[in-house]
Amino acid sequence: MPVASFTSLLQEESIDSVSGRIIRALSERGSLSAAQIARSTGLARSTVSMAVAALRKSGLVMDADSPDGPVARQIGRPGTALRLNPEAGTCIGVHISLDELRVVVADVSHSIISEQNIPMVRDYSPAEAALQLQQFIASTYAENGLRRSGLLGVGVSVSAPVSPGGIVHRSSIVPGWAGVNVVDVFGAALGTSILVNNESNCSAIAEYMWGAAQGEEDFVLFKINVGIGGSIVVKGQVWRGIAGGGGEFGHISIDPEGELCRCGNRGCIELKLGFAAALSDLSRVHGQRVTMDQAVDLALAGDVGAARLISDHGDMAGLALAMIGNVLNPPMFLISTALVRSGPILMDPLCAAFEKHSLLKTHELDEPLRTRIVPGALFANDVVLGAVGLVLRHHGRIS
Amino acid sequence: MPVASFTSLLQEESIDSVSGRIIRALSERGSLSAAQIARSTGLARSTVSMAVAALRKSGLVMDADSPDGPVARQIGRPGTALRLNPEAGTCIGVHISLDELRVVVADVSHSIISEQNIPMVRDYSPAEAALQLQQFIASTYAENGLRRSGLLGVGVSVSAPVSPGGIVHRSSIVPGWAGVNVVDVFGAALGTSILVNNESNCSAIAEYMWGAAQGEEDFVLFKINVGIGGSIVVKGQVWRGIAGGGGEFGHISIDPEGELCRCGNRGCIELKLGFAAALSDLSRVHGQRVTMDQAVDLALAGDVGAARLISDHGDMAGLALAMIGNVLNPPMFLISTALVRSGPILMDPLCAAFEKHSLLKTHELDEPLRTRIVPGALFANDVVLGAVGLVLRHHGRIS
Repeated sequence: MPVASFTSLLQEESIDSVSGRIIRALSERGSLSAAQIARSTGLARSTVSMAVAALRKSGLVMDADSPDGPVARQIGRPGTALRLNPEAGTCIGVHISLDELRVVVADVSHSIISEQNIPMVRDYSPAEAALQLQQFIASTYAENGLRRSGLLGVGVSVSAPVSPGGIVHRSSIVPGWAGVNVVDVFGAALGTSILVNNESNCSAIAEYMWGAAQGEEDFVLFKINVGIGGSIVVKGQVWRGIAGGGGEFGHISIDPEGELCRCGNRGCIELKLGFAAALSDLSRVHGQRVTMDQAVDLALAGDVGAARLISDHGDMAGLALAMIGNVLNPPMFLISTALVRSGPILMDPLCAAFEKHSLLKTHELDEPLRTRIVPGALFANDVVLGAVGLVLRHHGRIS
Repeated sequence: MPVASFTSLLQEESIDSVSGRIIRALSERGSLSAAQIARSTGLARSTVSMAVAALRKSGLVMDADSPDGPVARQIGRPGTALRLNPEAGTCIGVHISLDELRVVVADVSHSIISEQNIPMVRDYSPAEAALQLQQFIASTYAENGLRRSGLLGVGVSVSAPVSPGGIVHRSSIVPGWAGVNVVDVFGAALGTSILVNNESNCSAIAEYMWGAAQGEEDFVLFKINVGIGGSIVVKGQVWRGIAGGGGEFGHISIDPEGELCRCGNRGCIELKLGFAAALSDLSRVHGQRVTMDQAVDLALAGDVGAARLISDHGDMAGLALAMIGNVLNPPMFLISTALVRSGPILMDPLCAAFEKHSLLKTHELDEPLRTRIVPGALFANDVVLGAVGLVLRHHGRIS
């Protein structure tokens, strides 16, 4: 079967056909043994074997260790047995950042082909971003010998609440994007499927697919950056909320008469818990600009002030987690922040404060009923990987 | 087919068989037309027609307006076309209250057969409750000519977090129940399926089956009583949390250095928002004990103090809803409290405060993306009806 027909085969797979279910499982998970496919699809082992044989023959499915295809490096764990043919399709993840577009190109076997940052002039518009991306795709696909027709979709991460339909509601990172339907603007420019979601939701998808939340169907991600973000995953799906406002933990108001927040409300959690003020403090003390990574380095090297700031944030984060825990009582909280590299400096006060402020105390609960708190596993590029994941998880539904 | 075999037929129905799906839909919804059954099960209209004909012939399904069976009064809307034969099975709902057991006996056609309160001595134990219930069932079933073998299960509501396995974690209403597995204790005494859940979760199930949340697959119930409760419904299922602590909105700490709460934490929302302190205030002013219902009557009759207290609680509830909204951004909040009878006295300040403290403002959102806030429809007996609903919704899974 010629390479050109792979994409159409992928598109035509009915959601409920046996091959469709196998392809979706492989698209979402990267590589699986036949036994794992049977388990995750609920299909009989013999049915899987027959369908896999046919898919192998068509060239769409192959051994996970096959050397062919534009495999660069694998995201996450190595393949165990089967994967999709990397030539069957590619997808792109884009994170809309303050002054650049962070872009990853990957194929359906979960291999990264290219990872780049495209510099942008501040306050760039969605149309400018789409144009830059169009040019990036043309040149990158040419350089890497990739078929443009093999592009299955572009996942876009935005640091703002995004409605399920693709409308950006608020954005202090790129203010001009508020009210814009990114699916429409990017779709028109790029001529492919566009999937848009919030930054923290993308982090959660990346942790679920390749990080610390693998195998966890229900968890809550809590992100500590200069601001505060979050994501709620229920039965393996991000809970976006009716307007995309789910998981906006940073804007829970804990002091309705407090300081004004960039969101327009008063006393939001982010004002105290976002790491922006801590970095200002630390920069003042050290007489030079300190980043979050440098703050962690300082703390690990014994700087008492850096350690104190990180511990204080652990303490405050534990209180916030207890508040969210009294709403959701999730099986797991995943702490997504560069600060987890400081280990117990962050996590010990965080876990202690969570226990202190939670309704249900650890000693009252049998082990399986306790909420686990785990550090995230992906930091540098979790958001843009999650944007890739938006497309990979869209599996058979790609059109 | 003799009446005695109905129960076994109901039990034997495979979860995924056509008749099993139809029976489950009727058990959950009470009465449905063939077209509604087709819609809600996803089965073809012709498949439904054939299966319904067979179920009619066996006597398990009948016209919703059939006069036979121990029909007393229907819960919620009247039947439209088909229902289960009321003789096919009965179920019992029990609410564990401070000094009584509130009990409802209903049949699978959603008709209430008996509704009673069994007085109990304070601090009664689970074993004492089970014994009283055993005696109640024996006498009530004899009086009403009901087959004891037709009892499909007992749903139990407890005013405390209850783990999915049936363990009561905390209970300030009946303190001796903490740590008890109610499924075990009641199951041993009653010899039938026991389904246990939290009081507010039962309210949510009742509102979903017969009240203001009919047709709403995703909503959050917020309960204002002397204490504060809540429930989260996702895709038609209550989100209980890993240990049953989901929806414990009353114990979100808004002032970690505040007053001690009965739960052992400080500054819980319930301390300010529970209506207990308001009732004390009102009782002091009026020189006699005032109940929530009387407070509403006073406010509606123009008592400025009663109206002020209810309005102030609306204002505080709106802030709490905004906090929860920044976590979940649900399509709908359902306000479950006797106070909604005061209409705009409660709801106007509540909606205004929700708008003020929410991240996403109404004017930014198209109509379908807005969170609706609706008053609950069931008050007097919502919790015990929800306990009945636990059994009716367990449908084909009854064993």
